[in-house]
Amino acid sequence: MPAVVVVHGGAWSVPDKLAKAVVDGVKMAALDGFSVLERGGSALDAVEAAVRNLEDNVTFNAGHGAVLNADGDVELDAIIMDGRALGSGAVSSVKNIPNPVSLARAVMEKTPHLLLTSRGANLFAESIGMATVPTDTLVTANEREEWEEHRSYVAGVTEDFNSKCAHDTVGAVAVDSAGNVACATSTGGIRNKMVGRVGDAAIIGCGGYADNSSGAVSCTGHGESILKVTLARLILSHMEQGSGDTLHGCILFLTNKQFHLHAFFFPVPSQGNPQRSLHSWLCSTWASVCAAQEESSWCLHQDSGQLNLLQ
Amino acid sequence: MPAVVVVHGGAWSVPDKLAKAVVDGVKMAALDGFSVLERGGSALDAVEAAVRNLEDNVTFNAGHGAVLNADGDVELDAIIMDGRALGSGAVSSVKNIPNPVSLARAVMEKTPHLLLTSRGANLFAESIGMATVPTDTLVTANEREEWEEHRSYVAGVTEDFNSKCAHDTVGAVAVDSAGNVACATSTGGIRNKMVGRVGDAAIIGCGGYADNSSGAVSCTGHGESILKVTLARLILSHMEQGSGDTLHGCILFLTNKQFHLHAFFFPVPSQGNPQRSLHSWLCSTWASVCAAQEESSWCLHQDSGQLNLLQ
Repeated sequence: MPAVVVVHGGAWSVPDKLAKAVVDGVKMAALDGFSVLERGGSALDAVEAAVRNLEDNVTFNAGHGAVLNADGDVELDAIIMDGRALGSGAVSSVKNIPNPVSLARAVMEKTPHLLLTSRGANLFAESIGMATVPTDTLVTANEREEWEEHRSYVAGVTEDFNSKCAHDTVGAVAVDSAGNVACATSTGGIRNKMVGRVGDAAIIGCGGYADNSSGAVSCTGHGESILKVTLARLILSHMEQGSGDTLHGCILFLTNKQFHLHAFFFPVPSQGNPQRSLHSWLCSTWASVCAAQEESSWCLHQDSGQLNLLQ
Repeated sequence: MPAVVVVHGGAWSVPDKLAKAVVDGVKMAALDGFSVLERGGSALDAVEAAVRNLEDNVTFNAGHGAVLNADGDVELDAIIMDGRALGSGAVSSVKNIPNPVSLARAVMEKTPHLLLTSRGANLFAESIGMATVPTDTLVTANEREEWEEHRSYVAGVTEDFNSKCAHDTVGAVAVDSAGNVACATSTGGIRNKMVGRVGDAAIIGCGGYADNSSGAVSCTGHGESILKVTLARLILSHMEQGSGDTLHGCILFLTNKQFHLHAFFFPVPSQGNPQRSLHSWLCSTWASVCAAQEESSWCLHQDSGQLNLLQ
């Protein structure tokens, strides 16, 4: 099984002035995740490393660089999932945590629960000695300006879909050499979201899902649309049914529901050549590193076009 | 299409001393939900009415009668979903709200979001003038005693599976005469849960899902197990595939994953005779009212046995 890691930097359009930073960011994160796999690390370790890298990069809307909610505060969502036994951890609406994906992993490994929210998630972080940072540390001057200028959530969502938003949710999927899959997704949500709004990124089966028997998915896009169709689980259901046109099946399904869906998804199957089955829809920016045939070979991809199926 | 409403009062074993109260409670809630359908109300109206009835009944672990978390506090989760266009609303870890299912419906109808959590959910409740009650109003003397006696979460879960717990999550599914389906689920969670723990009940695709093209499901049981397999969505996926042995398919799937799942699920299909397809697994207590053939006919069922398929 060739090891592979795929990372994405969000669903929205990237303005030219930020294109290089975004592409460099996803490449660096993919390489970081892949270096974990090369050292014999698990898919779970790889997706955590890749997403931490993106959370530390202010170019992306996760951890440092997060958007502000309606109160001008930062509330973060993240999930991580291990395809070996469906272990998962997530946090929603957590504050002052620079790497929510690692807090999500701690929920998975150190509690009997899968999802901790808001103050409870922060209390848990404190109980395990996880470092916190002031909110201002997570917010860029540019985000503060954007927030001052655009105070309407609905208008903001519309603008985001029309190329004015530079960053969004991040995520990663990976397969390790043992054939185990994992996913992770992390986000600051959508600017001017209501206090306490939770999108798809913290929700199992929506912002992410990983199951060794089928594959792993990380989603990004309009959270409420993704939640309605439990997109990550839906994609894996199609993959489990062995349909060659998984992607078209999903799009058709969504069209039949007659509502607007804005989402990307990044599935990686646990069986077969990961590259051949890697899809992106209305693709924004992502990068993958794959050890095909020989462990030392790798390749990078970046695409900002339309429907793209790697061969 | 015969209208039908099915309600459940949780997954755990019911002690003899509470059997009558539990059975009377689910019967009353089912009748309440059905009366809405009889008056021409929607499936959505019916499940909200039924679940409000159960939330107002201290016999059940939702709204009044909720269990206490590790801090001796009450944090409530609820979801409601309308199968017509996959509209959904949910609240997690909300406090002092006697009818979280109605707050969930307000999230669906009055915000651009699907899920509000914790303080943000309470701020929203305040903004729409929803009445709150002191925490003590929601807690029974019996729950306070049980909590003082059993302070371990893990031990509590084990005991719950061994007949010492009297109440659990509630939920309802319905089909109205127009063939629309809906679901609602509401809970106080599991005693001694960590602060901020969110189980399946607030999570779309896990504690509930409703889609006119397939059916509606409300789940109850060990929340973390349900979350791992996104149980509500999984069941509907099996129903969508038209398998006659939907239930067995799901059980087999779960067994293959090699982890323990403790859950009930109550699916109602949007097509065909709802009664014939009504399943319960390791069934606790539930009731249904169905307008089969003639609008005025109805029937009630209560079962505390094993796998049960209504014919």
